[in-house]
Amino acid sequence: MKNEKYTISDVAKMLGVSRSTVSRAISNSPGVGDELRKKVLDFVDKIGYKPNTIAQSLSKGKINIIALIFGDVRNPFYADLAFNIQKILSNNGYMVMVFNSEYEEKNEIEFIRLAQQFNFAGLILLTAQTDEIKNELKTVNMPVVLVNRILDSYDGDSVLLDNFQAGYIAVRHLIELGHTYIGFIGGQKNSSAANQRYEGYRQALKNYHLPFNEKSVMYSDLKIETAYEIAKEYVSDIKNRPSALVIINDMTALSFIDYCKKTNIKIPEMLSIVSFDNIVFSAMHDISLTTVSQHVDKMSEHATRLIIKQLEEPDAKSERIILEPKLIIRNSTGPFNPDRFEE
Amino acid sequence: MKNEKYTISDVAKMLGVSRSTVSRAISNSPGVGDELRKKVLDFVDKIGYKPNTIAQSLSKGKINIIALIFGDVRNPFYADLAFNIQKILSNNGYMVMVFNSEYEEKNEIEFIRLAQQFNFAGLILLTAQTDEIKNELKTVNMPVVLVNRILDSYDGDSVLLDNFQAGYIAVRHLIELGHTYIGFIGGQKNSSAANQRYEGYRQALKNYHLPFNEKSVMYSDLKIETAYEIAKEYVSDIKNRPSALVIINDMTALSFIDYCKKTNIKIPEMLSIVSFDNIVFSAMHDISLTTVSQHVDKMSEHATRLIIKQLEEPDAKSERIILEPKLIIRNSTGPFNPDRFEE
Repeated sequence: MKNEKYTISDVAKMLGVSRSTVSRAISNSPGVGDELRKKVLDFVDKIGYKPNTIAQSLSKGKINIIALIFGDVRNPFYADLAFNIQKILSNNGYMVMVFNSEYEEKNEIEFIRLAQQFNFAGLILLTAQTDEIKNELKTVNMPVVLVNRILDSYDGDSVLLDNFQAGYIAVRHLIELGHTYIGFIGGQKNSSAANQRYEGYRQALKNYHLPFNEKSVMYSDLKIETAYEIAKEYVSDIKNRPSALVIINDMTALSFIDYCKKTNIKIPEMLSIVSFDNIVFSAMHDISLTTVSQHVDKMSEHATRLIIKQLEEPDAKSERIILEPKLIIRNSTGPFNPDRFEE
Repeated sequence: MKNEKYTISDVAKMLGVSRSTVSRAISNSPGVGDELRKKVLDFVDKIGYKPNTIAQSLSKGKINIIALIFGDVRNPFYADLAFNIQKILSNNGYMVMVFNSEYEEKNEIEFIRLAQQFNFAGLILLTAQTDEIKNELKTVNMPVVLVNRILDSYDGDSVLLDNFQAGYIAVRHLIELGHTYIGFIGGQKNSSAANQRYEGYRQALKNYHLPFNEKSVMYSDLKIETAYEIAKEYVSDIKNRPSALVIINDMTALSFIDYCKKTNIKIPEMLSIVSFDNIVFSAMHDISLTTVSQHVDKMSEHATRLIIKQLEEPDAKSERIILEPKLIIRNSTGPFNPDRFEE
């Protein structure tokens, strides 16, 4: 690579000027006459020299790195978000560092502090909503965008799915298919996304005059391993359980369904399942999961647009972007069948 | 959380000693008498104060962060590695920053430089094997572990699968099933893992006296999107193509198979497929992919053990760990059927 051959010192020597003149000319800083600036820029262009943007930003005390903090890199929804966000930010001159918190508040707080201590350019967070996190964010003096999370006292930029609506339309779909006993497998108890999906579930049951049963709600910590445990318990007493389930995310649903199929529970004949995320695997022919899309592309675009906006116009008004959920009907949901356990 | 309430200054005030006395006592540094040290430690223990390890390491000019650089976070093999490596290192007091290079040498070099400029504790790399990367690594003065990659002139720690053997046993399995026309879908041309699997493929064909046909080799860049394109081309002329394929990784294979199933190509009846990685999805009931395990758990354990060894014993001998590949036979491979395209 031609542009890797020269350092800023080489360029200065070759032109017979000082290092700082080259640096100022390139960074469009004052202190260099127009003619000299043009000479430097033309030369730099000719030899293919590219300044090391990291070193440059380091010397200015500003690091063009955005930290992205989320729970579990093994969840393809987060992986897609990370991939898209990095792609867009990289086209805008920013690097992305991904932190995987394992949904641990302690880790999330440590990562937020780290981003501050390193003087990162900004933070994109998909973290828990505890008071500790809230308090930590109050001390942060850099651009922050919350993705798919809300905090009571936070009035900065955020982009989220209408998670209440998402829970609501998932249940409505099951009701339209004739299901009357509908369960819910929730997620982290301190996740606003999970809680609002649950509220949407409760509201839909209420609106359509369906009974709510405490026993039909279970919770997962979103870890893949946990989904199998929950499925095991569910299947052990499947005849007395709901005929349809709303599951908090695709990864949990896929693991749940996998356990069901391995124990000869037919999906959707014996149990209908709808979840959230629309990860790439859910569209695969042999998986074909009914799910509510979170529009990961749009979510990534807004998250990056908002952080860049804060970086470029620190006084711009903050925005709250709310994305409309979209139900994608595939083959994991089907009509209620009263004879589903008969041979 | 009790331990979040106090700063080191609070502790100093409460004890009526200086900040540096508290700091020295906690970090077991000299300059504090045994009695005073005990007093500080007992008090700190009583009130539940925990020092901020990041700030502490920053003040020492050493950052307890390990950078992990790989191609695409959306590939569950990398996500699993990242998850495992982070879990183990975090139990040993290190944080992990994940960089997603999109398989771009330019990004990988930038990330390596960044890790150096930030004075990170170490680097774990699953990167390309170009001369540029090699040269960059020569300038790195921190612990480095290469995972599943080798470099000609590199004699540091590494952990890798015997990729030649992996390619070989994949083909041997297909030969045992009666296939004689076997194709290969490769990966990045500068990946030693991909190249050695290809060599294993060629060697197996040779050992069993099967013809090699240039036309039966295709290349993917490992991006999900590309796999569909390749499958499309393959299926368009499937009757003249190999009856069995070795595909460079599970993600590529899953996308390839998905395209096949959507166009009514039956797997394995019409086409047998074996790949590499054994990602969590490949074991799912409806996917059931025959694949060669890379032992992601062992790979992660060795990678972390080696980097910690370098950190703790800088003069320790370097090791090259070579893992034995393991063929996991599932339902994407089956016996050769000469009548496979007849109704």
